[in-house]
Amino acid sequence: MALQQKPTLVSKIFAEFLGTFVLVFGGCGAAVFAAKVVGDDGLNMGIGFLGVALAFGLTVVVMAYAVGHVSGDQLRDPAVTLGCVLAGRTPVKDAVPYWITQLVAGIVAGGVVLLIASGNPDYSLAKDGPATNGYGEFSPNGFSLLSVLIAEFVLTAIFLYVILGATDDRSPVGMAPLAIGLSLTLIHLVAIPVSNTSVNPARSFGVAVFAGGDALGQVWVFFLAPLAGAAVAGLTYNLLFPKAAEVPITEGG
Amino acid sequence: MALQQKPTLVSKIFAEFLGTFVLVFGGCGAAVFAAKVVGDDGLNMGIGFLGVALAFGLTVVVMAYAVGHVSGDQLRDPAVTLGCVLAGRTPVKDAVPYWITQLVAGIVAGGVVLLIASGNPDYSLAKDGPATNGYGEFSPNGFSLLSVLIAEFVLTAIFLYVILGATDDRSPVGMAPLAIGLSLTLIHLVAIPVSNTSVNPARSFGVAVFAGGDALGQVWVFFLAPLAGAAVAGLTYNLLFPKAAEVPITEGG
Amino acid sequence: MALQQKPTLVSKIFAEFLGTFVLVFGGCGAAVFAAKVVGDDGLNMGIGFLGVALAFGLTVVVMAYAVGHVSGDQLRDPAVTLGCVLAGRTPVKDAVPYWITQLVAGIVAGGVVLLIASGNPDYSLAKDGPATNGYGEFSPNGFSLLSVLIAEFVLTAIFLYVILGATDDRSPVGMAPLAIGLSLTLIHLVAIPVSNTSVNPARSFGVAVFAGGDALGQVWVFFLAPLAGAAVAGLTYNLLFPKAAEVPITEGG
Amino acid sequence: MALQQKPTLVSKIFAEFLGTFVLVFGGCGAAVFAAKVVGDDGLNMGIGFLGVALAFGLTVVVMAYAVGHVSGDQLRDPAVTLGCVLAGRTPVKDAVPYWITQLVAGIVAGGVVLLIASGNPDYSLAKDGPATNGYGEFSPNGFSLLSVLIAEFVLTAIFLYVILGATDDRSPVGMAPLAIGLSLTLIHLVAIPVSNTSVNPARSFGVAVFAGGDALGQVWVFFLAPLAGAAVAGLTYNLLFPKAAEVPITEGG
Repeated sequence: MALQQKPTLVSKIFAEFLGTFVLVFGGCGAAVFAAKVVGDDGLNMGIGFLGVALAFGLTVVVMAYAVGHVSGDQLRDPAVTLGCVLAGRTPVKDAVPYWITQLVAGIVAGGVVLLIASGNPDYSLAKDGPATNGYGEFSPNGFSLLSVLIAEFVLTAIFLYVILGATDDRSPVGMAPLAIGLSLTLIHLVAIPVSNTSVNPARSFGVAVFAGGDALGQVWVFFLAPLAGAAVAGLTYNLLFPKAAEVPITEGG
Repeated sequence: MALQQKPTLVSKIFAEFLGTFVLVFGGCGAAVFAAKVVGDDGLNMGIGFLGVALAFGLTVVVMAYAVGHVSGDQLRDPAVTLGCVLAGRTPVKDAVPYWITQLVAGIVAGGVVLLIASGNPDYSLAKDGPATNGYGEFSPNGFSLLSVLIAEFVLTAIFLYVILGATDDRSPVGMAPLAIGLSLTLIHLVAIPVSNTSVNPARSFGVAVFAGGDALGQVWVFFLAPLAGAAVAGLTYNLLFPKAAEVPITEGG
Repeated sequence: MALQQKPTLVSKIFAEFLGTFVLVFGGCGAAVFAAKVVGDDGLNMGIGFLGVALAFGLTVVVMAYAVGHVSGDQLRDPAVTLGCVLAGRTPVKDAVPYWITQLVAGIVAGGVVLLIASGNPDYSLAKDGPATNGYGEFSPNGFSLLSVLIAEFVLTAIFLYVILGATDDRSPVGMAPLAIGLSLTLIHLVAIPVSNTSVNPARSFGVAVFAGGDALGQVWVFFLAPLAGAAVAGLTYNLLFPKAAEVPITEGG
Repeated sequence: MALQQKPTLVSKIFAEFLGTFVLVFGGCGAAVFAAKVVGDDGLNMGIGFLGVALAFGLTVVVMAYAVGHVSGDQLRDPAVTLGCVLAGRTPVKDAVPYWITQLVAGIVAGGVVLLIASGNPDYSLAKDGPATNGYGEFSPNGFSLLSVLIAEFVLTAIFLYVILGATDDRSPVGMAPLAIGLSLTLIHLVAIPVSNTSVNPARSFGVAVFAGGDALGQVWVFFLAPLAGAAVAGLTYNLLFPKAAEVPITEGG
């Protein structure tokens, strides 16, 4: 006997909070604590950009399997929420509560990362930064504002096409969390040196508020480009991949 | 014709033993034998913290697929057992046998790691350690007791939310082992430099007994924080994500 | 009620464009921006060949889940299209439109990679190259033309056997994108030092047109060897793994 | 309408050949060509032991999805064949044809690796070796014969428990290739520094025949320990995890 199950609003908000918290805590925590760990022999035992890319992707994989039954697989990121609203997947009225939840969760996660980091005498916010996003002088490898805008725009659009496609009801059931999370790993493999990779305003804002100064001054880029990329993908997905005229297949008759 | 299959208690205990053995042997073995392998040219060919994080996660992925049909997907860790009991997933009467099995399996695995390591003349327990967990001087990167307590508490709670969510009967069948194992990889990507990552008292105790001294003196932290984090998640999961009033969907009627 | 859904030609072409674009942009972007990122301390925080191999594979995993419901899982590569035509999986009349789409998408992706790279003052096309394929002096580790021909031929044949096998209707539903994408990661793990790994003329051509000179002069190798390997696999798959005489299993009768 | 499909013996032998060829070519090829690639700046861009571990595992993941519908998921390794025979999964009469096929495929793959390597002037068999297994002086990190015997025995037993468990008809359909392949990655993450990791006599023999000398003289270890570990697992699996008395669940009655 199948059962009708409608998650409550409280469940959906908490799922969203937990998902975004894990994304920012796991991804930025890995970047801050573990990317570079150099011993007396000068070797880096840390996980590097490859490990950080894997960490960000895995946060989405595991939380989508953990709370996807409550919140769906496609959120945890204000840009993703926008794209899903524009593609008709998420009701408009849910957008603002989700956005607020995501921004709050990002800040809480950023705070916990810094709290743990403060227990390491070698760690200084000024020197190591809390995994903020940036361009120019604040790009990990010195990429310009234009490069960062293009990369964040293109990569967020790709992210949305993957999300909308993998959760399309024509796609295999149960694999969307893996596809979506691994696409976030791919995005980080490409863009950590460019912008430290955002594609997610909540992730950028959640750590920029603690960094302040220039990091906070540049954070508009990581609202603008991801939201624009997500909007383009959200508006075009249904045009590019329309469902065919739906001809019922009658079974047994 | 579907068949009713109830694993015997012996099967469940052996599955638990095998699962915990592989977790500790595979994870700590990778850390001890393979994390750092430096040749005459000074390059590290070893797997680093990234490889160790992958190894720990894969132990859970593969053993959950291997023995999940016997023991369920959610065990191999005394903290996880506690969380599953508190969430009503595991019968209270099973907890003590599982805990004993896990602790014994952890010690056996720690012993086999050290037996193999003893065949390498360059390996010394004093110098290299058997992958113990610790804080302060015994944290891989010098994190304080408070940082370690917060990290282990938060990460074990996340671990339990993933376990309880991915094995929720509203989640896709067959993907829970992947989600749970990859969450353990994520947890290690964040926390190896902090505490060498426990979230599992059996993993900590199984190697600390051979290290003795300060490692054993600090092992209480890796009972306290994981058990507390698991308890909070186990007690709150059903409140946060209640099943909706179950309204039968009648088919064909 | 199941529905009959036939994607339009426009949808299929756009899916193919998007898939190939992401493959070349993601894979070559990761190679150009992220493989080597060396700071003042001389440590490489970049993703190395391992990260590039992962990036190429993930492009296929995620795009196959994203647009597989439109374009099938087996394309994005002119060699793969050839093999699928020869194995009877893809209609002959679709081959030329797919090939044109793939080549155009590869060039567009190569252009976007270079546009972003141009915003980094340290990046020079002459010095760093745009992730072109090559042999001899242009092989990443100095492998001869013969070695490159053998490696590309053998690896593309393996790629096609995986594609044709994983999408065989006797294989588990929903796992083909993962198998195919991970086989591309495997292929890159083996062959980046040999040829920078092609197995895909569109990927090679899309960046060679911007490099010009010797890179463009060598690009014939990365048409010849992958197409030959794919053809051999496509022509032999059905002979080696014929479907058994199909004996209907009557259910309930 | 479901169809009864019985692969022919030729199909099964070719599937086995192809699977073992890809395992040895992909795994040893990655080790020989890509593990260490050091440029003028002294940085290793190569994939290290982590990448080699991933390559070996992916060979099994992708070939099990590619040819699993013909050969089953559990072969490509003489030790695995032995364990499957002893556990009653593989008919005794199939063992010898499989073993011969595996050994031949291993040698062919080893030959192709060396043929490609011969096109690199920097590569010398004497200096770099063809990824042979060994103990003592020939262990990558100097582990003793006893350590190697224990590690290979324990890890092959684990490998077989994963194979027999993941392909058990009580386990989730379609996930066995992933579980089995990732267990081979795990095994390599632990044991490359110990023995260069065998758990597979065909993999060891296929490269040792080209190395000759001491490598060939030590190859008995990589028949003995894996076969013994596989035998113990094969003989005990059904005792430890017996199917319960099968009580039919009548549906609708």
